[in-house]
Amino acid sequence: MKALVTGFEPFGADAVNPSRKAVLRLPARLGDLAIETRVLPTVFGRAIAALDDALVTVWPDIVLCVGLAGGRAELSLERVAINVDDARIPDNDGQQPIDRPIAADGPAAYFTGLPVKAAVAAMREAGLPAIVSNTAGTFVCNHVFYGLMHLVVTRHLPVRGGFLHVPYLPSQAACLSGAPSMALDQIVQGIEIVLRVAAARTDDIATPEGMIS
Amino acid sequence: MKALVTGFEPFGADAVNPSRKAVLRLPARLGDLAIETRVLPTVFGRAIAALDDALVTVWPDIVLCVGLAGGRAELSLERVAINVDDARIPDNDGQQPIDRPIAADGPAAYFTGLPVKAAVAAMREAGLPAIVSNTAGTFVCNHVFYGLMHLVVTRHLPVRGGFLHVPYLPSQAACLSGAPSMALDQIVQGIEIVLRVAAARTDDIATPEGMIS
Amino acid sequence: MKALVTGFEPFGADAVNPSRKAVLRLPARLGDLAIETRVLPTVFGRAIAALDDALVTVWPDIVLCVGLAGGRAELSLERVAINVDDARIPDNDGQQPIDRPIAADGPAAYFTGLPVKAAVAAMREAGLPAIVSNTAGTFVCNHVFYGLMHLVVTRHLPVRGGFLHVPYLPSQAACLSGAPSMALDQIVQGIEIVLRVAAARTDDIATPEGMIS
Amino acid sequence: MKALVTGFEPFGADAVNPSRKAVLRLPARLGDLAIETRVLPTVFGRAIAALDDALVTVWPDIVLCVGLAGGRAELSLERVAINVDDARIPDNDGQQPIDRPIAADGPAAYFTGLPVKAAVAAMREAGLPAIVSNTAGTFVCNHVFYGLMHLVVTRHLPVRGGFLHVPYLPSQAACLSGAPSMALDQIVQGIEIVLRVAAARTDDIATPEGMIS
Repeated sequence: MKALVTGFEPFGADAVNPSRKAVLRLPARLGDLAIETRVLPTVFGRAIAALDDALVTVWPDIVLCVGLAGGRAELSLERVAINVDDARIPDNDGQQPIDRPIAADGPAAYFTGLPVKAAVAAMREAGLPAIVSNTAGTFVCNHVFYGLMHLVVTRHLPVRGGFLHVPYLPSQAACLSGAPSMALDQIVQGIEIVLRVAAARTDDIATPEGMIS
Repeated sequence: MKALVTGFEPFGADAVNPSRKAVLRLPARLGDLAIETRVLPTVFGRAIAALDDALVTVWPDIVLCVGLAGGRAELSLERVAINVDDARIPDNDGQQPIDRPIAADGPAAYFTGLPVKAAVAAMREAGLPAIVSNTAGTFVCNHVFYGLMHLVVTRHLPVRGGFLHVPYLPSQAACLSGAPSMALDQIVQGIEIVLRVAAARTDDIATPEGMIS
Repeated sequence: MKALVTGFEPFGADAVNPSRKAVLRLPARLGDLAIETRVLPTVFGRAIAALDDALVTVWPDIVLCVGLAGGRAELSLERVAINVDDARIPDNDGQQPIDRPIAADGPAAYFTGLPVKAAVAAMREAGLPAIVSNTAGTFVCNHVFYGLMHLVVTRHLPVRGGFLHVPYLPSQAACLSGAPSMALDQIVQGIEIVLRVAAARTDDIATPEGMIS
Repeated sequence: MKALVTGFEPFGADAVNPSRKAVLRLPARLGDLAIETRVLPTVFGRAIAALDDALVTVWPDIVLCVGLAGGRAELSLERVAINVDDARIPDNDGQQPIDRPIAADGPAAYFTGLPVKAAVAAMREAGLPAIVSNTAGTFVCNHVFYGLMHLVVTRHLPVRGGFLHVPYLPSQAACLSGAPSMALDQIVQGIEIVLRVAAARTDDIATPEGMIS
């Protein structure tokens, strides 16, 4: 079984991106699961193109895209990607789309293909703060998550895909005021757990991880 | 032109629900816009049934459902409703659905039918903290929002619908620790502004109100 | 019985200061309590001088200084003032003292002279979010609070003094992202409650309002 | 030169205390600085007695007490200890003092004896989120910090003392909702940096680390 794991280039005011650092530290294998990694440009359009390119090169069974969610305290497995780009800041090419569909003919949203609740339970058991999140935002992270699922569905790929948002690194939070952070080791560990759980099972567990609002 | 505005009964640990209180204080008219109000049970299934009943009684042009988002500091106009019930706590009938579709044959999500960015801009201009939110949660609020849009689309109703999440009242926050709140007057004012903007325009403005994550 | 209540001029990036607005809306009397108000400059040194001037003009029995604590969700009655100026930003005269004692010969701190727990309980009963706070910061608010208590003690004034921090106004939070706020009416109501309680009793109640950290 | 570093036993709802774990992982030496460690009971009175006992056994030059500040995202070097016990929850012996002075004849507060700003700067340079905090709360942490400084001053001990609050461990935050956390490695590293800076210098640097409120 093969997994493709992607991170992002740094963007906005940040000089580093923990998703990039974490992905580059993943091992080549986790048990029977071979791991390929890519770092995507934080650019609308080009990010999906790079992901597409990786998909047809690697032919993975599992795809986990990883991105930074600055300000969150927990590893956040995303439940859903929505069909809209609404950029609060320009991307790394200076583009700032507002309320633009990602796929003109695509559905309003795609749900994750990964067993997010089982993965969250496994991360917590390993001592990592983790949640199921109901929004991946409207910037390049959501864009890539939606793009991934749209490619999988429209091309009938035998791929289970999902998205993990990770906190700031401590070194990033050290320059901010009061922002929570997570050590790189733990971000890497969280990614590995998600991959192991995704490799081990296709169905999810039925635990209440929803949000009131 | 007619608007239907709904609030919810109190739920969980709360003895009051600001959405209910606010809706009951709305005037019968705002300029040319006639206003009908309903209070929905905070119950999966029955809430949509009650909304459906109101729709076929009132035949509104605009529907704004209002709910409590305890812990948020701002009036949050929701961008999207997703097709899942995942209850963190039981509803008022003791039901706690986990990862259950709201409409088995429905799309993954519906986008709001209201000009949320124009409404947010108008609320801010009036001195009210307001945002466009990308998640209405997975409890009865999202359930009703999705149910509303599904009724509108599947029945081809000439209705523009949307959802507003409101903060705790100060009297609720007084019993909690550190939770933000908003005075009832301002919640009522926010609802009125959303209604006026929705009555005045169908298209939205193109301002960056997206979230990075 | 006479009370002196002070607010502050706007400072930093803020165009208004809720403490100033609230103080200017206080009535001239609350039952038997006559109320005098002053607006202090947000300036190290000059703020205490203006307060001193008011003290010898008004000869109050109770002094409540009020200031803005942007980012807090609750009315915060301060427990303690500390003998240090450490300015994160320049004051309105461009001064930015670092780790400078307020009174070279003063004690490290003064505790409030007001029954803060009874006042917090009364505010909550009236439906207002309120806490006992253990830090008034190290900017002009703490400066004035310390200065007040130092004047009272060194001059043996028959004055009971204290400090109330108030949240942003909604109109201020509307320009920020996610900051909690409180309506002016409620800030005014909170001040009036503190004054009534302070006029009615000198001892405090023994409720646990401490913080773990 | 010798340092005494203390942590606390777990308290309240927590099964572990990161301050205890971190202190037990400190090396016996950091360069020329010998390190002795103790774990204090989270008990009013007995904690200071145990600290006192350690002081007269170890005869340290530097004392750093470390405690848990659940909910904070950063390593917090405390600026000031105040002369009051006000327990929000019972301590480990079931005591819950309310508004009781720690030392009946003591001053209202003691300022830290450590170069907290130099230490915060060094922690940040090492990539650790760190702040100067102006409140150590009113529970056993503040109690011990005040008790330490009171012993030092009243006995004329040649000791420079201070207090460091540390965040939850990730494994603790994994059981909570949204709480920030910090890896044990980084907490240990932070303590070591504070010790090195304290051993290297007695004066502090003049950087603005104050709080507005």
